Amino acid sequence: MSRRIVLSHPPVIAAAASAVGGKEAEGPLGGCFDYHDPTDRFGKDTFEKAESELQHITMNLLLQKAHIREGDIDLLLAGDLLNQCTASAYGLLPFNRPYLGLYGACSTSAEGLALASLLLSGGAANTAAVVVSSHYASAERQFRYPLEYGGQRTPTAQWTVTGSGAFYLRREGSAAMPAITEVAIGKIVTGGIRDLCNMGAAMAPAAFDTLQSYFRESGGSPADFDGIFTGDLGFEGHAILSELLESAGYPAPNLGDCGLLVYDRERQDMHAGGSGCGCSASVLAGYLLPKLQSGALRRILFLATGALMSPGSVWQGGSIPGIAHLLRIESRAKEA
Amino acid sequence: MSRRIVLSHPPVIAAAASAVGGKEAEGPLGGCFDYHDPTDRFGKDTFEKAESELQHITMNLLLQKAHIREGDIDLLLAGDLLNQCTASAYGLLPFNRPYLGLYGACSTSAEGLALASLLLSGGAANTAAVVVSSHYASAERQFRYPLEYGGQRTPTAQWTVTGSGAFYLRREGSAAMPAITEVAIGKIVTGGIRDLCNMGAAMAPAAFDTLQSYFRESGGSPADFDGIFTGDLGFEGHAILSELLESAGYPAPNLGDCGLLVYDRERQDMHAGGSGCGCSASVLAGYLLPKLQSGALRRILFLATGALMSPGSVWQGGSIPGIAHLLRIESRAKEA
Repeated sequence: MSRRIVLSHPPVIAAAASAVGGKEAEGPLGGCFDYHDPTDRFGKDTFEKAESELQHITMNLLLQKAHIREGDIDLLLAGDLLNQCTASAYGLLPFNRPYLGLYGACSTSAEGLALASLLLSGGAANTAAVVVSSHYASAERQFRYPLEYGGQRTPTAQWTVTGSGAFYLRREGSAAMPAITEVAIGKIVTGGIRDLCNMGAAMAPAAFDTLQSYFRESGGSPADFDGIFTGDLGFEGHAILSELLESAGYPAPNLGDCGLLVYDRERQDMHAGGSGCGCSASVLAGYLLPKLQSGALRRILFLATGALMSPGSVWQGGSIPGIAHLLRIESRAKEA
Repeated sequence: MSRRIVLSHPPVIAAAASAVGGKEAEGPLGGCFDYHDPTDRFGKDTFEKAESELQHITMNLLLQKAHIREGDIDLLLAGDLLNQCTASAYGLLPFNRPYLGLYGACSTSAEGLALASLLLSGGAANTAAVVVSSHYASAERQFRYPLEYGGQRTPTAQWTVTGSGAFYLRREGSAAMPAITEVAIGKIVTGGIRDLCNMGAAMAPAAFDTLQSYFRESGGSPADFDGIFTGDLGFEGHAILSELLESAGYPAPNLGDCGLLVYDRERQDMHAGGSGCGCSASVLAGYLLPKLQSGALRRILFLATGALMSPGSVWQGGSIPGIAHLLRIESRAKEA
């Protein structure tokens, strides 16, 4: 079977919501998000509880924006970066919906949206919600050092986005809502990187693998799209992916990255850019989907990338495995 | 929408494989598993690498038993208990298939099989493999204490199974293969338990929630089945679930539990029984599916339960959230 799956019954993204922390609100997309807390605490006394609350808030915003009650959601798909994905389990517990937990690291937004699309297109459910999050402080102490340690950041290090995105998908929707028309599920790919502060280089080969296979199978090229948006390759990974695509005969001047969009790299001193499940999710929900709704973007590829290591697996000598899932999202807005 | 989903095109479980460690091989089902390593090391120098190798071995066994090559697998769904699910990411990397990472704690076997069933039934793919694992030593040091600490086990503590199960599902199969005909996706349920050494009590309310909803929606009762097999409630959780079902008007003398089947509780001194993703997966693959193939069992409910906490979430005061996904599996063997 080809990896590219053309959905026989493309579901629509009927609504999306986003909530972020202070640095994200101060960034170039600050005005796009539905909610922010400048303290990054979201009213909680630990960063892990704050991340759960962030999902809880985003899901409540989604219900409001979609004008639905929680019972209107047939399936809930969610994930995050914390050990055992506890931000999702605790944050979404109050909603009492059939729940499918995912682990795709920073690719979880695209993994969840791809799975939900396949389930809705195939008739397993009529509606689904996808919720993911990441939090700078909970991720730093879990994957690198506690913030109190004051470790120096290397130039290739990315900044985990404190943010969450939530999406409400419907099998049937109004003609104006953006639709997910194709998906491609990623393979696990490793380029041999062992540096926990260079996720972009670790994930770029996976993004290349999925994109190249998609273009080969579809017979298309980057020029067919208004934009190709990776999740969080950041400055380093973005440069690598651009080179890989160019050398494979798929030059992509329209290649963007949510990790480069979310912060002002110079003004905010963010080193290689943003990362985390919440990076691609909040940028898709707050920035890209409104452009697809209005018709300012008509056809994009969205490709969230994940690094599937743990600190322990790298300490034990493993290289960092990457993965990238792809969605083709199309605007249904009337042409101006 | 009802939580019970009757599959319009029930996929078959065309093959299954299992591999386990020493204690499991010495247990009452020892002869049922395809492979075991009495050292629990699987040729590796750390327990985490051993768990990856366990998945790798089980997947190879699956390919052999199904008489397929890895390219015959359209979608690979996998998960485990390790932080960031690294047993799956590293163990399955060599197979180079489109990969969907799941986190459902010990419910992952049923979560993966339910998702694969929905995807195949809906036409998203023609074949899928589901692989999960757990390892006693990697789980103990991650969730409780390193083994070297020599901590005393409490009477309600369960023993994480060193084991893996792998399943090959096909949308079309021969008439003799067991079929997954219905699924029900679990909700996150917490009964307020905070004891990391009493998972059975933490997960029993989730199993009850899914079962009660299934019987209500289907109009059926436990007597309709040759057996109802939970994943790893163990002695404590099994007793609680039995009582809950009885008091709700669904007495179930045919209620079994993979965690009670896998060890000889007295002879092996296993306290409350087995647990872990690998418990339900290896027992389903090695013991239950052959009985469904032969027709010795004709119709069962399989219900793996997961506890969605992390040690950190409990240290921060959270109670343990549980979840249980249900499958109805039917024999297609000719009646004797």
